[in-house]
Parts: sequence; C-alpha cells; structure tokens
Amino acid sequence: MSDFINDDFLLQTESARRLYHDYAVRQPIIDYHCHLIPAYVADDHQFNNLGQIWLEGDHYKWRAMRTNGIDERFITGHDTSDWEKFEKWAETVPFTMCNPLYHWTHLELKTAFGVGKLLNPSTAKEIYDKCSEMLRTPEFSARGLMKHYNVETVCTTDDPADSLEHHLKVAADKAFGIKMLPTWRPDKAMAVENPVAYKEYLIRLGKAADVDINSFDNLLKALKLRHDFFRSVGCRLSDHGLEAFYAEDYSHEEIEAIFNKVIGGTMPDAAEIAKFKSAMLVEFGIMDHDAGWTQQFHYGAIRDNNTRMFRQLGPDTGFDSIGDFTVAKSMSKFFDTLDRQGKLAKTIIYNLNPRDNELVATMIGNFQDGGYGPGKIQFGSGWWFLDQKLGIERQLGALGVLGLLSRFVGMLTDSRSFLSYPRHEYFRRILCNMLGSQIEQGQLPASEIDFIGREIVAKVSYGNAKEYFKF
Amino acid sequence: MSDFINDDFLLQTESARRLYHDYAVRQPIIDYHCHLIPAYVADDHQFNNLGQIWLEGDHYKWRAMRTNGIDERFITGHDTSDWEKFEKWAETVPFTMCNPLYHWTHLELKTAFGVGKLLNPSTAKEIYDKCSEMLRTPEFSARGLMKHYNVETVCTTDDPADSLEHHLKVAADKAFGIKMLPTWRPDKAMAVENPVAYKEYLIRLGKAADVDINSFDNLLKALKLRHDFFRSVGCRLSDHGLEAFYAEDYSHEEIEAIFNKVIGGTMPDAAEIAKFKSAMLVEFGIMDHDAGWTQQFHYGAIRDNNTRMFRQLGPDTGFDSIGDFTVAKSMSKFFDTLDRQGKLAKTIIYNLNPRDNELVATMIGNFQDGGYGPGKIQFGSGWWFLDQKLGIERQLGALGVLGLLSRFVGMLTDSRSFLSYPRHEYFRRILCNMLGSQIEQGQLPASEIDFIGREIVAKVSYGNAKEYFKF
Amino acid sequence: MSDFINDDFLLQTESARRLYHDYAVRQPIIDYHCHLIPAYVADDHQFNNLGQIWLEGDHYKWRAMRTNGIDERFITGHDTSDWEKFEKWAETVPFTMCNPLYHWTHLELKTAFGVGKLLNPSTAKEIYDKCSEMLRTPEFSARGLMKHYNVETVCTTDDPADSLEHHLKVAADKAFGIKMLPTWRPDKAMAVENPVAYKEYLIRLGKAADVDINSFDNLLKALKLRHDFFRSVGCRLSDHGLEAFYAEDYSHEEIEAIFNKVIGGTMPDAAEIAKFKSAMLVEFGIMDHDAGWTQQFHYGAIRDNNTRMFRQLGPDTGFDSIGDFTVAKSMSKFFDTLDRQGKLAKTIIYNLNPRDNELVATMIGNFQDGGYGPGKIQFGSGWWFLDQKLGIERQLGALGVLGLLSRFVGMLTDSRSFLSYPRHEYFRRILCNMLGSQIEQGQLPASEIDFIGREIVAKVSYGNAKEYFKF
Repeated sequence: MSDFINDDFLLQTESARRLYHDYAVRQPIIDYHCHLIPAYVADDHQFNNLGQIWLEGDHYKWRAMRTNGIDERFITGHDTSDWEKFEKWAETVPFTMCNPLYHWTHLELKTAFGVGKLLNPSTAKEIYDKCSEMLRTPEFSARGLMKHYNVETVCTTDDPADSLEHHLKVAADKAFGIKMLPTWRPDKAMAVENPVAYKEYLIRLGKAADVDINSFDNLLKALKLRHDFFRSVGCRLSDHGLEAFYAEDYSHEEIEAIFNKVIGGTMPDAAEIAKFKSAMLVEFGIMDHDAGWTQQFHYGAIRDNNTRMFRQLGPDTGFDSIGDFTVAKSMSKFFDTLDRQGKLAKTIIYNLNPRDNELVATMIGNFQDGGYGPGKIQFGSGWWFLDQKLGIERQLGALGVLGLLSRFVGMLTDSRSFLSYPRHEYFRRILCNMLGSQIEQGQLPASEIDFIGREIVAKVSYGNAKEYFKF
Repeated sequence: MSDFINDDFLLQTESARRLYHDYAVRQPIIDYHCHLIPAYVADDHQFNNLGQIWLEGDHYKWRAMRTNGIDERFITGHDTSDWEKFEKWAETVPFTMCNPLYHWTHLELKTAFGVGKLLNPSTAKEIYDKCSEMLRTPEFSARGLMKHYNVETVCTTDDPADSLEHHLKVAADKAFGIKMLPTWRPDKAMAVENPVAYKEYLIRLGKAADVDINSFDNLLKALKLRHDFFRSVGCRLSDHGLEAFYAEDYSHEEIEAIFNKVIGGTMPDAAEIAKFKSAMLVEFGIMDHDAGWTQQFHYGAIRDNNTRMFRQLGPDTGFDSIGDFTVAKSMSKFFDTLDRQGKLAKTIIYNLNPRDNELVATMIGNFQDGGYGPGKIQFGSGWWFLDQKLGIERQLGALGVLGLLSRFVGMLTDSRSFLSYPRHEYFRRILCNMLGSQIEQGQLPASEIDFIGREIVAKVSYGNAKEYFKF
Repeated sequence: MSDFINDDFLLQTESARRLYHDYAVRQPIIDYHCHLIPAYVADDHQFNNLGQIWLEGDHYKWRAMRTNGIDERFITGHDTSDWEKFEKWAETVPFTMCNPLYHWTHLELKTAFGVGKLLNPSTAKEIYDKCSEMLRTPEFSARGLMKHYNVETVCTTDDPADSLEHHLKVAADKAFGIKMLPTWRPDKAMAVENPVAYKEYLIRLGKAADVDINSFDNLLKALKLRHDFFRSVGCRLSDHGLEAFYAEDYSHEEIEAIFNKVIGGTMPDAAEIAKFKSAMLVEFGIMDHDAGWTQQFHYGAIRDNNTRMFRQLGPDTGFDSIGDFTVAKSMSKFFDTLDRQGKLAKTIIYNLNPRDNELVATMIGNFQDGGYGPGKIQFGSGWWFLDQKLGIERQLGALGVLGLLSRFVGMLTDSRSFLSYPRHEYFRRILCNMLGSQIEQGQLPASEIDFIGREIVAKVSYGNAKEYFKF
C-alpha cells in the first residue's frame, strides 16, 4: 500500500506536502459536531471486535452493501454474527473504489491499527482477528482512541430533555484531558406534525425542566431552563435538522392557538406547522444569541424514503437522500428577522445539495458583522453525502471564491464512530492539496507559503474553531 | 491528426492507457437505449452519401449550424442538396471546437472510414466523396456498420401500438448475429393533455391489441396484451420521457372518471392530468416488475420551446432544452409506492439537468435491494446534452462518490445514427482516463490496476449491462 | 512577485502562453456593460488617492472586510479617513487569498501602477503613497486610465429619464478617441410594486420625454421617445435586472387597469405585478428589436437581504446574494412570445446561480437564428459573484460543450471602477489557459493552434463583440 495510503496521500505537489506536514498534521482535533454515544465515553467503552465498531449503526456502509447485492441478513440481521457481517463488508470494500468508504476504511486501518494491507475477502480474516485483538486492549477503548487521535474537544448531539449525566460524569473526571460537551438539538420540540408523539415529548421535557408544559409560554419557559442547564454543562452550540428554512409571518397569539390545538390532539395543517416552526426557530435563535452560542442548521435532506425498510429498521438506517428545496428567500428572511432585533447568533449553515454551495457561500456574506470579529456567519463543511473529496473540494472552492476561506472554522466528523477522526486528516490533506496546487500554478504567491500554512492551513484545521467557539 | 484522434485520445496517463487498451477496447457493445429506425436494420439500409447518414434528423448538428449562422435552407430546407447541406456543416465544424460534435465528427470519420484529416471547407469535398463511395458498398450498410463496431445487442424505442414487424424480421434472420430488441415507450398512452390526439391513439392501440378501449380497465387490458407481445419479441426494457415525476394520490374511480372525461372529448385540468399520469406510471411499473424488465425514466427536458420553428418543422428538430423542475419528493414517493407493494422493477433514472446529479446518485441508494443482487437501481449515463466529456465526468464522479461506480451498467448511444457507436469508445476513454488519473494521483492503489480493469472498466463497459438486462 | 502576477500568470501550458501572447494580449477592450459614472469620463475625473478609487462604492471589498472582522466605521463610516480605510483593506488583503479580490488587487497594482509588491500591512503605506501620487497626475485621470488599458468602447448603465448630457459631452470631444455609449436600463419603469416611488418616477420620465404620462399608452409613448433619443446618442444595448423571468398572459386592457390602479395610489397584488412586468418586458423587447439593439437580462439575485444595513446604507452596499428561482419555462415562454411575432432582438442572458449554467447554455440554442448570423442569442459571461476563475471556467466550459464557444461575445467588467479593466486580461488568461490545456491534452488538435488563436481567442476577446454590437 506504499503507493496508496502513505504519508503523502492526496498531496500531489511539493507545496501541498509542505503545507500538510509543517502546518496541518500536528494540530489537535476540535470535533465540534458529532453523534458519539455519550455513555461510551463516560464508561470508556471497549469494543469487542472490528465488526462491532465499524458496522453497528453505520448506515453509510449499509447502503454500500445493499448496492453491492449483500442480503439484508448480513447487514442488519439478528441471525448473523459480527464476523459474518464483517466478511460481507470485506467482500464489498473493493467494489467501493471511488467512494469515500474506500479511503476511510484504509485510513482507519492504517492510522488506528497500523494495518497497511487492503481489505478484501483474502485479507478479511487476518485483519479482523488482528484489529479485534487490539480493540480489546485498554489503548483501544473509546477514550483511548480519542487520545490516540489527539482530540481536544468533542460536541455530541443531545435532546433538551436529556439529563446530560454522561457529560457531567466525563467533566468530573479531571484525569481525562478531553472535553465532551453537549449540543442543543431541539428538533423534537418543534415536531408538531405528529401531535401524539409531541405530547409525549412535552411530558418528558416538562419533567426534565420541572415545568408543567400546559401552554406555549410554559414550553418556552421549560426550554429556557434546559438551555441554561445545557450552558452550565458547557454547551456552546445548537443544531437544527431542517428540510428547508421556515420563515413565515406569525403572531404570538397564532402560535399559542396552534400549540393549544396540537396538545388538544388535533393535527395542525401545513400552514400552521410552518408558522409554528418559524416561531420556534426564532425563539431558539434568540436563546442562542443571548447565551453567546453558535447555531447550526443542517438543511435539505429528504428522509425515510423507503417505507418498507423504515417499518423494518426505523430511521437513520440508510434510506435518506438529497432534496431539492427552494430556500434562498426564506433563509434570508429568517436570518434577517433575527438580525433586525440584534439577536443573530454566530451561525453555521450546512447544505446537503451541492447545487446550493454558491447560494450559501454568498448568503453568509449578507449577515457578516465586522464588529463581531472575523467570520461570524459560516458556510459549513461538506455534510453527510458531501463529506468526500469532491464534495469537500467544491465546498472549499465555493467558499474560497465567494467568501474568505481563511476565516473558515473547518472540519467536523458528524460521526457516530470513534474511528472517524481520520476524516479530519482527510480534510486537511484535501485542503493542503488544493492550496498547494494553487501555489504551484501561480494562483497564490509561493513566497507566501508560510503565511498560507500559518494563517490558512493551521487556522482552518484548528485555530479558527478554537477562537470561534470559545469552549 | 496524430496529435488528436489517435490510439491514446483522451488517455492522459499511463494507467489510463493500460486500462483502456487492456480492458475496454475489446468489449462488445450493448446499446440498450437508442432510436435507430428498425426498418433500416430489417432492410439493411444502404446510405447514399455522408450528408444523408450524418445530417438527416440530427438535431444536434442542426442546432450547431443555426448557432453558427447557417441559413435554415441549408439545414432542413427541401431546395438544397445533400452536398450543399454537407458543405455548410463542414464550414461549421471548426467552429464546434470544445463541443462534443467536434470529437464525434472526427471519431466517426476515423473509426468508420479511416479518415484522419480534419473536416473543414478545404477538405469537405474530398471527405464527402471518399466516405460517400464507401457508404455505397455492402460493408457500410446499416448492418455492416453494426458489425464493424462489434455491436452485440441494440434496443430501439417503440410505441406499444407498433407491430414490431421489423424486429420480428431481424430476429428471424439467423445469419445476422446481432440482436435488435424493442423497448416499450408508452408516452402516448399517458398523454391525456390532448384529448383529440389521445382518442386517435387509443383507436390505434386498440386495433393493435384487438381490444375496444372504451374504459380505463380496457386501456389497461390492451396495454397488458401489448406488453406481453413486446416481451415475446424480446423486449426487456421500458422507457418514459417525463418533465418531472408524477406521484399524486388517486383512486381507481378518479382515474376512470378522468379517462371517461377525456374520451368524452373534454380537456382535463392540470390536477387531473397529474393524477392520470401518476396512475399510469404505477400501472406501467407493475407490468415491468412482473415481467422482470428494467424501467427507464428520462426526465427534465422542456421541449418545443420555439413555436415558430415547431410549426415549420415539428418536434425533435433542435428546439429543446434543460428544465429546472423540483423532483426529489415526488420521485421518492413514486418509487416508494411501487416498493411498498413489492413491485419495484429494476430502474434507471436519467436526469437532464446536471444540477440533479447528486440528487439522483443518492436517490438510487434509497431503493437498492441487496436481495436482488448488485445495482438494482441505476443512475443513468449522461443523457442528451450531458453526453459529452464534462457531462460524463460529472455523472461518473457523482456516482463514484455517492454510490458504487463498479456496479454501473454504463453507456448507451440514445442515437438515431448507425455512426454513433464510437460514443461507447468515447465514454470508455473518459472512464479509463478518470480511473487512471486517480491511480496516478494515489487515490486508487496502483497495485489494484488489474482488479480495476477487470471489475470496473470491463464490467462498466459491457459485463454489468450483460448481467443486468439478461437479454 | 515574479512567481505570481507575471507575464505568464494563470497560463499553465506552452499552448496557453502562445495563445495569450500571440492572440489575446493586443486586442482592444470593448466593455459593453459597466457601471462607470458618466460624469467622471465627461469631466475627466482625477482621483485623489488609492483609497478613493478602490474603496468608494466597491461593495465586493466591503463584504470581504466585514467577513474579515473590520468594523463598519472603517468600511463606510464618515469619521474615518481614506487612509484609515485603506489601512484596514490592506490588513484584509492577505486573508482574501483564493478570492478574486486577491488577484484583482495585485493585477491592478501591477498593470496600472507597476507595483509588484504584495499588499499587506507592512507594504500598505508605501503602496498607498506611491499610487496616490501617480493618481494625481494627468496620466491617471479617468480618461488616462481608459487609454492606458486600450479601451475602445464602454457602455454605461442609464435610466430612460437620464439626460445623457455626459455622453453627449464625451461624444462631442473629438480628441478623445474612446466611445462612451449609454445603455437603456428601464428597471424603474416596471417597478409598480412601489406605487409612490413609481408615480414620482413617471413624473421624472414624463418631463424627460415631454409627455404627460397619465395612461399606459402614454407611458409607452414616453418610453419610445426616450428609446429613440438613447439610440440617437449611440445606445445599442438595453439591460434588465430581474429576479426571474416574467411571462404571464395578459391583455392590453388588464395592463391599462393595473397602470391606472397604481397611479391611483393602490398597491397592485402579486399577480398584477407579474402581469405588468410581463407586458413591459415584451414592449421593451419589441423596441429593442426594432432598433436593432441587443437586450441583456441579469437575473437571479436576491437583494438587500440585511434590513438593518439597508436602512443604514441603502442598496448596492454588499448585502445581496444568489437566489434559487425556477426559471426555465417562463424564460422560454418570454423569448418565444417575442420570437413568434418576429420581434426577438439579439439577446444576452446572465444567470447569477451557476447551477443554471447548463439551463442557460441550452436555452440560447432554442432561439438561435441562422438567418441572422452567428450567435444571435448569447450566454453571458460569469456575472457578479461568478466573475472569478472558477465561475468563468464553468461558464466557458458549459458554453463550450453545449453551444459554440467560438461565437461568444466575451467579457465585460460590470464595474464602477476605472481600475477594473484588467478583468478583461484575467478573463483572456483563463480562456487561453482552458484552450491551451485542451490542446496539450489532445482534446483539440495542436495543428490548429493558429485557427484557435485567430478564430476563438481573438474573436472572443474582441472581434465577436465588435461584429455583434455594431457600435
């Protein structure tokens, strides 16, 4: 594999190699948006084998396996062993060439386990046994892997009703030098399109906040209490998963009426749902602003497209895809609504359809505020399907020509896996390769390579996020 | 021309050249979607001259000529000779540099006629005379050209009311080793937006099926009979030309009422048209599934934009272009409707607007079925305006990072011309160039070049289609 | 800076260098769309310092400064000096790497002032002093700069009510060899969405035309008189700034009624606004056609997104961005409406969202007219946010594969600045680099390099515009 995943992987020019090795490689990791299971960190979870850590819940791999003709039994079945599933994954890997899974797989094998062989049916058993054995050692526990990858801070994704007990436990352990902070993700508090589930959720939220949520005002009160609690545990970011941006006009009375209708058990109509979500987004935006947080918006997915498999497996199992929503005007109106009140928090916008890259890269320019400091509004790194070489290059390219790449807060894994940290390395290599190419093609002055390394590569890899989030 | 269309045309790296010459070049051609005139194959048509075979009905060239300032007389006029038209085309060719027509023209001259000169006004007469003379020899008949290009199977595009007499004649001729199979293209059976034409069509369809189509159920009955007949003649694919996907809710009663309204001569409204088409797409999808066929969807064109020229020349004369429809949710709903019933056939989706590449490349992942085998749902090769180097690279790129390129069924000509087979060569060169570059840039392991050649290049060029369509 | 902005800047291959130096560099500039202040040319304005000429009204730089964390005082504040603002701009410049501002800044320093140093805080004072001193010499007056850059013709952007006094003054000065022609930009004559401002505008327009605009017919009469007047001053182009294309059906009576409603002080509804604008676009299109002009459409921006800053600074201050309108069908219908009447003028379409590049590149093909001559309908050069290397390459790429690049009328600055002419050089370098790469990769025949230089590079840089606009 010396011609493949080596020190100079993806670094096609001398300038790229210099930027990466001199400025990127030693930066710690701030993984400011991920989906780690907090209990795994709190309990310092030990994985039993490579199948478990790689295949449980990894819907990226599941999709690839289905496309490769692997029977569902070997993907999500309960009657097949970890090894049997792994064997089918190993069979699939060579057929993922060109897909990021091929790179991720071999980067993870190399950087976590020192395995330089390519994974395929003939190497599967040897690799499985070797890595599984390592995984059962203390160095390869959840915390062990985080230390191995030089992680400084991770931000998980949490519901306002969550107790954050695992975050508190980790924070109390002064010996563990890595911060695990919660992120406020209140999607369920807006989900009035399902009155039954919504009412159940309000009970759970009410208990957590010790508030009887019998009115819209009490809903806001409960949320504010939880927001304060999250802040006390170190939370500095919120996150919203949206199809599109909601920015309908509404009055407080209308929202109260919709709230009462929903808790009365009646399904609101589409216009009411949009109004309610519009109001909630504004309320959340104000809370985030007042707390000095950063709000994140992940928009544009269409989810659970396959009803048959949704019934069988539930959400987040590999049946989501890229939508084509019209968003510019409502996105603009939403941010303007907050900005007019002086309540626009630091913001990161992630689009799922890359056709919106330029839209987002110019939208952020409308709400930058020099008085705040650099890069108040951010165009988020290539998300989900776009977290791959082409997707990252297009995001960096659009941000570069339409905004200031130098002020970008950079990469995050968005991952459930303790083996996903090499995605930061992957991103940094792509960033350095792009900048290196521009230097060697005379688009950037070669005389400035140290400035580029120090002020762009190192800052985008780590320094900007450090400065921006203020954990 | 040794620096232009030579053995290594478009192959920029040593790896690309090795992949192309060792794995791609000798693969036969399965042209699973084209618009050949079946009678030309049945009668082994002989073309009189290069003007005829190149310019009759070729609206790609017509558009280029109009853009180049050629008067319509020399494009579609009845008072100009084949030579006069060809002369104007030769005058236009140098101005098509960067357009695929420039490559296609010289690839066809080289691979069919051995002509290495560039076509321009100074070479026009010599090239015209030489090629026309060759075209009048038996080796250059319709069938001769198909054999010359190592064609194994072609699938034409046919109306359900068609007799398929030419397909039957070709099939009966055991000496001709190439399969010409029909494709079921029932656009007219859904076209209720024009009640007069629709009623005429029903009469024609009814005659073909020997059914009196006086009810919606009889329409379905007639179509099913024709579907069976098409299958008996070797048909294994359907094809639909759609602006966008129709996925309205409907009841059988509603569709019957709309049908009765239309055959009563009344224009249905927009909602009724959408409902009717939604129902028909589901019915067709079920027929295709039950017959084990592959359904194709070509969506996103806006057609006949120029009324003045439409009145003068009719459809498909070079006045169509790329639309910008919102499709993700209805596309998803349509496939889900079939999948929930266990009736989702193998499917190929072709988008016309490249901004939808990533949408489609992820949509297919929602409905893959490991139990079926690899690649049940396919992202179709760059269609129409996208059938050019940049368009092909973007389709391959998106499929690669978002799906499994290795499981792609590959190229088709979509062409009316017996000289279009080099488009397969063109596609294969672009594919090998892309993979070769990735090898030489360390994105794919050089050690795996034989796997890449055997399992990606050869399979995408030929093997996957062979396996998938089961002609 | 010898490795950066030198003779071969952006020219990566020998073929690219040959094309640029032999065919592009000596072509004059026809800047057929710009926003120069006509009085500055008429009065041969002299700038006092580099801050003035660079930062006054340049909302591209303002956006970059805000993103870089510069306080608004140093951007648009009245209590800071030209030098203080410049100092903050110099501080920002290194952080604009990858953005076109970085290239433009250094190209302008080099080509106007011969300054080869990079602008940053340590060189700011020296560069400011040197350039400011030069700017106060006669060679660096408005006209001096135009001559320095070999400008042949510029077309400003003017309201129908404008007196064109400055254009007349420049035209009368036979010693000044450069043409400054007006462009007809009647956006305000369609802006019925604001009845109060509209009525005020009609008074101004009526005075200019000496017509009492008390009816829709009189509005058309006044506009026609002004159109004639503009033509007499040398105007050969119109321009429209649109969100999307308006192509509603309407009757003359309906438009009269809407007009009367608006001048009666009543706000028209959305449907009425769309109808009115549809009618006006057709009327303007007919006037342009009959006068032999070229009509331009700049569509797709969403403007004034930041209400707080709009109130503080007004329009065009850096708070606009890229929209995502659905346009294909209405764009097609609009052009078809004119074409059916034989009234479709020469046309240039500029999109702001690059996801529409292919849509526009194929739309123009629907309305080409060989009888007119080459390239009647044009896909405009990368506009506003797209006027950068990536944006230009994507526009040229899409036009190349979907139309005829050889017939393209090429670049324009769209700029308010007398220092923006190097954008033509920038464009030409990108064009030559693209064609040169295609030659060296065997996509274009190397034997044809002189044809490519003469018929593509020189023509796209200058000759096609000369022929097309017929100033």
